[in-house]
Amino acid sequence: MTALRCHGRLARLQARLARKRISALLVTQPANRRYLSGFSASDHGIQESAGVLLVPRRGQPYLLTDSRFLLQAREEAAGFSVRLYQKGLLASLQQLLPELGVRRLGFESHYLLHSTAGRLARMAEKLGLELVPVTDMVEPLRVVKTEEEIGRIRAAVLLNEQVFQQVYRTIRPGMTEAGIALALETGMREMGAEGPSFATIVAFGTNAAKPHAVPGSRVLAEGEPVLIDMGLVLDGYCADMTRTVVVGKPDPLFLERLRIVRRAQLAAIRVIRAGIPSREVDLAARRVIRESGYGACFGHALGHGVGLEVHEEPRLSARCRKKLRAGMVVTVEPGIYLPEWGGVRLENMVVVRKKGCEVFNKDTTFLDL
Amino acid sequence: MTALRCHGRLARLQARLARKRISALLVTQPANRRYLSGFSASDHGIQESAGVLLVPRRGQPYLLTDSRFLLQAREEAAGFSVRLYQKGLLASLQQLLPELGVRRLGFESHYLLHSTAGRLARMAEKLGLELVPVTDMVEPLRVVKTEEEIGRIRAAVLLNEQVFQQVYRTIRPGMTEAGIALALETGMREMGAEGPSFATIVAFGTNAAKPHAVPGSRVLAEGEPVLIDMGLVLDGYCADMTRTVVVGKPDPLFLERLRIVRRAQLAAIRVIRAGIPSREVDLAARRVIRESGYGACFGHALGHGVGLEVHEEPRLSARCRKKLRAGMVVTVEPGIYLPEWGGVRLENMVVVRKKGCEVFNKDTTFLDL
Repeated sequence: MTALRCHGRLARLQARLARKRISALLVTQPANRRYLSGFSASDHGIQESAGVLLVPRRGQPYLLTDSRFLLQAREEAAGFSVRLYQKGLLASLQQLLPELGVRRLGFESHYLLHSTAGRLARMAEKLGLELVPVTDMVEPLRVVKTEEEIGRIRAAVLLNEQVFQQVYRTIRPGMTEAGIALALETGMREMGAEGPSFATIVAFGTNAAKPHAVPGSRVLAEGEPVLIDMGLVLDGYCADMTRTVVVGKPDPLFLERLRIVRRAQLAAIRVIRAGIPSREVDLAARRVIRESGYGACFGHALGHGVGLEVHEEPRLSARCRKKLRAGMVVTVEPGIYLPEWGGVRLENMVVVRKKGCEVFNKDTTFLDL
Repeated sequence: MTALRCHGRLARLQARLARKRISALLVTQPANRRYLSGFSASDHGIQESAGVLLVPRRGQPYLLTDSRFLLQAREEAAGFSVRLYQKGLLASLQQLLPELGVRRLGFESHYLLHSTAGRLARMAEKLGLELVPVTDMVEPLRVVKTEEEIGRIRAAVLLNEQVFQQVYRTIRPGMTEAGIALALETGMREMGAEGPSFATIVAFGTNAAKPHAVPGSRVLAEGEPVLIDMGLVLDGYCADMTRTVVVGKPDPLFLERLRIVRRAQLAAIRVIRAGIPSREVDLAARRVIRESGYGACFGHALGHGVGLEVHEEPRLSARCRKKLRAGMVVTVEPGIYLPEWGGVRLENMVVVRKKGCEVFNKDTTFLDL
């Protein structure tokens, strides 16, 4: 990521800070940190951060990190001044904030622990500065993707499909859910991904009735449906795809339900365009499933945004009245689930365009059946 | 995990709650949740929790979760009443807290987001109850392990060594750091672990000078040192081990430094016993390295506790005056790092006993050299 590209993002954030009269924003959310700086290190949970940004309304932004990440920070976060915190983040801030003349310090309320916020508040009091909790300063910038980001997401989707195809060809009765999930995640890394974007779901038969099934030791039987929901991270951007397949001869009921789900997906894709309210997209798919008699069997929302995070704004849900905008990237993933029987879900990713949308996926495994 | 075992833990927590006059504790920290209930689901980061516990000072404890985890929660959390939150956690709490007559609600300040705590505070005000932030209600119970926990940790350490040995035998010049790390993590899962307990470190040559190096595309040369720091999770409990090895003929300087590190490790292990202050253990190892002329090259603390989390209390550090207690499990991991040259680290895990300690590790790869 070049300095220039992040510079535009920073300028837009700084304009937002000016409007809210915030002197500087402390950025702790890892995807926001990467979006603004290009610094790609991963945190080991919220309690072991790889670093934070301090972005003043005007002038030089800072990346505060520890010695483990110094070299990487300098290489990646072009345009940022990298500072080490040797005695902890708060000690560094206590020194830096007065230097920069910060009076109103914004922080990300949705990604700072209550205990850390408490220590920050005591420091702020000592320094005589005001703390401003925010939840929506950086995320709204991320929701509409540039063409360069769209290119990265497209590449992630296509690599994800390659991994799927490579493993799909090897699936045989006798394999376990956990074995297939491991093959998929190993394949992702062997083929160049940073890793999975979420814990891979592989569910056989009735297990597929749970939308977030954890792969276990269940053994695949001939003709049994296999639901695979998988994603990877490539160059920071996520992919997310679901296929429900059968090894051997599928039964007619499975085929009927799969076709309904595919029709629901196509109905949604047909209406997606800039300006349409989210809920109308959800309802377009839901209507197909309802009219086929399975209305009660589709309990989750139709889709979600994808970018640096695998779940981000916007949501495609029957309750969301916000309008889609060109450059938003979303999943379209209707499903039919029956506890006694199992489940069918198909998930593709699309980018919203002025007129219509572009479907990233090329894989059509569901048409084999 | 049986109900009986968690029952003892709950009783000890409830006694602590009574002492602090807390009517009920909201447990959000995932390792604490597993420790108290046996519920083993993983969270996808702090923003996507698999569930929380509500433990009243007396009587029935609750596990609140969503429909994805209902079945697993019922199977695993024996003794807990499982409640679904269909309209979100706060809505469920708003109903449950008055039912239980909670007046003073404790919450884990070190594992609740500032924004969530804000919503909790508004709810508490509406219900007329007092919020009590705590940071040390459950963790102190976890720091001393039972024999059953020690058995699980021992099994995790031994499996970790098997995975190491299996991959170590295959290491050849021409392999990459990332390739070896992937083989180790795949091996862990194939051999029955839940997964790695942290991102595996594989560092060649000068890369080993960074204690938290990220495996990259560097290619192994003949005779070059390889530092491997790896851990896995088995039955919820973590292992953590470091070896520094050479494929081919090691140079004399490497051997000299490795022997110093091993002598430092043995010096620490010799003094570990219940009642010794942590800092004395750290200093026993540090003295060996200092007297060998490498005092400035060992920048980190000697070790840390391991259990349900791979980094937990206690710390073995020169600044920690607390005394070790029988049943604590700690790593002993001295190292020597020189930026221009590379690094050597050896890490074993031990359990503190009344007299001395038990070293879990059987692997002696460092003696081959």
